[in-house]
Amino acid sequence: MPNYASRMERVRPSAIRELLRLGDDPSITSFGGGYPDPALFPMDDLRPIFDRLLTSDHALSLQYTASNGVPLLREQIAARLTADGMPATADDVLVVSGGQQGLDLAGRLVLDPGDVVVTENPTFLGALIAFNPCEPRYAAVPVDADGMDTDVLEDVLAKHTTGARGRGDSGRVKLLYTIPDFQNPSGVTMSLERRHRLIELANRHDLLVVEDTPYRALRYEGTHQPTLKSLDTEGRVVHLGSFSKILAPGMRLGWALAAPEILAQLGLLKLAADTQCSTLNMAATSGYLAAHDIDAHIAGMCAAYRSKRDTMLETLAATFPAGVTWTRPEGGLFTWVSFSEGFDTGAFMRDHALPRARVAYVPGATFFPVDEEPRHARFSFSNSTPEQIVQGITALGQLLHEQLPG
Amino acid sequence: MPNYASRMERVRPSAIRELLRLGDDPSITSFGGGYPDPALFPMDDLRPIFDRLLTSDHALSLQYTASNGVPLLREQIAARLTADGMPATADDVLVVSGGQQGLDLAGRLVLDPGDVVVTENPTFLGALIAFNPCEPRYAAVPVDADGMDTDVLEDVLAKHTTGARGRGDSGRVKLLYTIPDFQNPSGVTMSLERRHRLIELANRHDLLVVEDTPYRALRYEGTHQPTLKSLDTEGRVVHLGSFSKILAPGMRLGWALAAPEILAQLGLLKLAADTQCSTLNMAATSGYLAAHDIDAHIAGMCAAYRSKRDTMLETLAATFPAGVTWTRPEGGLFTWVSFSEGFDTGAFMRDHALPRARVAYVPGATFFPVDEEPRHARFSFSNSTPEQIVQGITALGQLLHEQLPG
Repeated sequence: MPNYASRMERVRPSAIRELLRLGDDPSITSFGGGYPDPALFPMDDLRPIFDRLLTSDHALSLQYTASNGVPLLREQIAARLTADGMPATADDVLVVSGGQQGLDLAGRLVLDPGDVVVTENPTFLGALIAFNPCEPRYAAVPVDADGMDTDVLEDVLAKHTTGARGRGDSGRVKLLYTIPDFQNPSGVTMSLERRHRLIELANRHDLLVVEDTPYRALRYEGTHQPTLKSLDTEGRVVHLGSFSKILAPGMRLGWALAAPEILAQLGLLKLAADTQCSTLNMAATSGYLAAHDIDAHIAGMCAAYRSKRDTMLETLAATFPAGVTWTRPEGGLFTWVSFSEGFDTGAFMRDHALPRARVAYVPGATFFPVDEEPRHARFSFSNSTPEQIVQGITALGQLLHEQLPG
Repeated sequence: MPNYASRMERVRPSAIRELLRLGDDPSITSFGGGYPDPALFPMDDLRPIFDRLLTSDHALSLQYTASNGVPLLREQIAARLTADGMPATADDVLVVSGGQQGLDLAGRLVLDPGDVVVTENPTFLGALIAFNPCEPRYAAVPVDADGMDTDVLEDVLAKHTTGARGRGDSGRVKLLYTIPDFQNPSGVTMSLERRHRLIELANRHDLLVVEDTPYRALRYEGTHQPTLKSLDTEGRVVHLGSFSKILAPGMRLGWALAAPEILAQLGLLKLAADTQCSTLNMAATSGYLAAHDIDAHIAGMCAAYRSKRDTMLETLAATFPAGVTWTRPEGGLFTWVSFSEGFDTGAFMRDHALPRARVAYVPGATFFPVDEEPRHARFSFSNSTPEQIVQGITALGQLLHEQLPG
């Protein structure tokens, strides 16, 4: 074996792959993956766009293009960001291969081994997977119904500023990662007051804030909140967005908006990482945005997802035992279900939910960056039919009544 | 400004971006970019494939899929690798976003700051861009008509095994990067004897070998050589390939073939980097491989590129002054032109070629990882018409006759 074997320690297998595989078994009702509903993909609108691009007049759709993304698409994204309270031009936007690449590039830009990343507790597993190769440590700040608890955040930042450092451990907090809207996995949204407070603390402690907003456009009720980027007073927020949940994930397109000096560096890391995104997919997405009203399309998706959410919340209320609680997400794809102390959602899924009810979800332990709590689970309502939601949740409820002391 | 400003030093702007921009000016005859000829993209074959995929029956073409790539495409790639002397199954293949992502992942897998990467001298700028964020040092081994000089390689490796180390400088050679077939930028191909020798030295010095083969299928004459991977006795070669030059770069698809324990780690880094490649583009490429004879398509491309190569070589011979030399590539997209000591191809392009002849190429200095030699240039013949080649080379030849002592 070559001499880099030990170096491989920086990459560890993860539970997400095994879970993704479960989604492939059609006999399982899966509330696991954070997948959008493919029935909502605008296939009939996209087909003629690809058709037109794949003619000899448009052969450049399959050629190399600008590393930071085709100009018209960047312009269209900038217009959408501007409408969302973040004035931007095409030059402020970097097209990335889904939000995941934005996380990877931002992590690589600032993190050295031992640096501290602050996240919500729990947080998106994919972000941990993106940051882990940089070998950071994590400080996890609890969320409640108003999102990340900024009082705890203040304490955590104060502690890391003054505390002792171990060997090979910078202990320096460099990056704060947050999903302010319909957070993954908890489903909660950060209040306006906390958004202001977070920016204040980021300024005081000189942090790079990575704001991840894949679900932002999928609001089903309540008040739209301004993005952290729109409240950013010192150019320290990297705002990430994605077409995965509002158009289709299979084209792998998202965007980063950041201050010019940060965006330029992210762009160079993008060039190093994979040269550019798919020209064809960028051209098609641009064509879709030019020819269709994506906000009307999103409104249709919201109606469908809201109904699925309501079905799931109602069925949970009707069939789950007392003592089990869950969040009421105002948007997005997930609710976060919490059981009493001592309950292990992983063991329950392995021993009961999967073999007896043929139902899957994501055991919550994997979303905790530091201390894994086994008593939670993430339930996604996006990629199941209402019938599957009623049947699956009801079946789980019956098993839970059996297993939990009444 | 946030406190990571100094960290940004790891990413530096590069000449390639400026050069890519030149390609956008239609009044310039550019021999610069390593772009395939878009007239050779099989648009008419791809259009019905995308058409079929973009129907509601195939909505999963736009959904998330397996991080390592859609299974059928991996199987088809494995069959092609097997036919090329590298017995493989779908499980041995990782689909990546073009060869560039393979370079990025391989570098991140093994490199720590100060580690040494051995490359050909000159070498592919994109590889340096991919490795640079890992902050390696480079040792560059000259190429001649038979590719990387393995006698010099042996000396370089011996020196790095025994030499003193500076501070913060592991001095350890971990990775050997090579483009054995129709090398970028020199156009030369590594002889069979040197391939065997390289593997022997990699074994002795415990190196990871990254074999980059984007041009491999584009052979116009001479003897097909076995890949380094096919000669790999200890599972230390990562073989990278790409659909960019044989199908189209705008879909951003390539592959990595490696020993199982290495491939698994590359797969986890891929998951961290961008989750997966475009499902749609993978499905379309798979559909293309199933429905069409890509080898026949490649044979057609080879005929077209061979003719362009011949036109360029003949025009160089007819119009360039004595004392200028160039390689005769048996395949690929480039010839490497060398001028006499003291000549600066960058200055000549800026002062004469661009303003007076409206012709661009890539000044060679940028391809040297250590000591930049200004007296070379890379000329690509792939993305120009025969008329443009004759006109552009002839115009350059006239200017050179003016500028060079006769």
